[in-house]
This record gives sequence, C-alpha cells and structure tokens, in this order.
Amino acid sequence: MDDIGYMQKALLLAETAAANGEVPVGAVVVLADGQEFTGHNAPITLHDPSAHAEMRAMRAACAATGNYRLSGATLYVTLEPCTMCAGAIVHARIGRVVYGADDPKTGAVTSLYQVLSDSRLNHQPAVTSGVMADACGALLKRFFRHRRQHRKATTN
Amino acid sequence: MDDIGYMQKALLLAETAAANGEVPVGAVVVLADGQEFTGHNAPITLHDPSAHAEMRAMRAACAATGNYRLSGATLYVTLEPCTMCAGAIVHARIGRVVYGADDPKTGAVTSLYQVLSDSRLNHQPAVTSGVMADACGALLKRFFRHRRQHRKATTN
Repeated sequence: MDDIGYMQKALLLAETAAANGEVPVGAVVVLADGQEFTGHNAPITLHDPSAHAEMRAMRAACAATGNYRLSGATLYVTLEPCTMCAGAIVHARIGRVVYGADDPKTGAVTSLYQVLSDSRLNHQPAVTSGVMADACGALLKRFFRHRRQHRKATTN
Repeated sequence: MDDIGYMQKALLLAETAAANGEVPVGAVVVLADGQEFTGHNAPITLHDPSAHAEMRAMRAACAATGNYRLSGATLYVTLEPCTMCAGAIVHARIGRVVYGADDPKTGAVTSLYQVLSDSRLNHQPAVTSGVMADACGALLKRFFRHRRQHRKATTN
C-alpha cells in the first residue's frame, strides 16, 4: 500500500474519533515487516490527556512487539503532531512520519516547533507532509463548525 | 507537605526506576484536594516510549478522577520534562510544575524549548525549578556512570 492508501485508513480512524465526540485525528503505524497498528484520538473517552491518535498507534505497536522502539516504522497521521506526539516519535525512533494537514495552533513538526528536524535531539525521522491535506483538514473544520453550532444552540 | 517533601518522594521513585535498569526519574502529581499519584520512568520495562515518570503519574491521576484534565494539580518531577511530557502537561492543564535537575540534552521547559511558557499554546502552568536539583542530578550521574562502566566491562 502507498502513502495515500495508509492516509485513507488514518482518515477513517479520524472519522471514528469524530463519531465519539473527539477531535477527528487518526493514525496508522506500519512496521518494517508490514504489520499495521492503528489509533484514533480519544483523550476525553479514555480519561487520558496523552491518548492522541499517534500515541495510541505507537503504544499499540510497542506493546505488540515488546519493544519501546519502532526503528524503521512509518507513522501516518491526519494532523501535524503536537509537541507531546513529536517527542514520543523521537523516543520511539520512528523512521518516517507522514502527515496530512498542518496544525498552525499546536503543530510541532513545522508550525510552532520543528522537533523532528532538531539536530540537538538524538533522532530525526524523515518527514512527508501535506498527504491528503485537504481531506484531513476538511474533516477537522466540519467537526469544529458542528461543535460551535451545537454549543451555540444549547446555550441559547 | 511542602515542595521539598514531595520532591523527596519523587526521588525515591527515581531510585525505583534505577533499580529496574531505567533512567532514574520519578514524579508525583498532587491534586488540589491533596490526593497523590506517583510514577517512575519505565519505557524499557513496559515496552512504551511514553512511559516517562510524569506521564505515568498524570495518567494514573486522570484514570482515578475520570477526567483528562488535572486543573489545579501540581506535578513534581526530578528532571526537567522533555517535549513529550511538557506537551502532555499542557494538555492536562496542570496548574504548577516543580522540577529538580535541568536536562540540557532534552529539556523542554528551559533548556532546549520553553513549551510551558509558550503563549501560543492554550495553557501556561506556573513553574518552579531547581528544587533538590543536586540530589536529583547526582542520582542520574551515578546511574549513567555505572552503566558506562558496566558496558565497558562487558565489551572488554
């Protein structure tokens, strides 16, 4: 499967997050041997501030392989990772990160910080951005527009 | 209990990490009502790159309270948080962070990044640094010195 195929999977996971009332972000970790591990954003549902899509996919992959490192793995995620997720990506030694939409408010790959290309840290994954960015961003916009309208309706 | 008392608790947790062969870092989350939740660094043992001391203490507190936010809580940790942990601290809306030793290699509070005072993010906790810094740092130095000696001995 190519980058588009994996990002389509990540988008489906993002839709699952939205259906649960969570900010729609989805992620897939693909190991060097082709094994896949998925995650969707679920901090509210799981009572866990660290339960972002990419954290959950990485933790699932690590639990299954019995290794806290995922050297050679590729992480697909619909939204630019935040500082938390970028830090975990470095800790896990993810080989390549592919993301969809930029996150100008909290992104830590290109937007606010450039954690994944920081030569002071001990790992720099390859990064591909903008894969299916319009679809990934549109899903987020729809979610926030709907939430604003709902909140307005319930406070009137 | 005051800052020194909680940091002493965090130091004992760091020693537990060291006894398990993990980098010695310990953390305590204290909620506004005084409830305490602890964590020690355990990524290798738990096969989880996100299992830093402060992440584990925050997750335990969130699981117990059924809330992904810890508004008004204080986080004590023996070492300056990294980008991952600093990001999670912002997500969890921790009220105050107290840490011991600076981490010039990966610290994201004062050393490499200043995530917790970044006004572009939507939360800035109060920060107190340097509490029992010498004891916190000495424990780390002893751990790394011992590990280097052990590696040298086993490769000769």
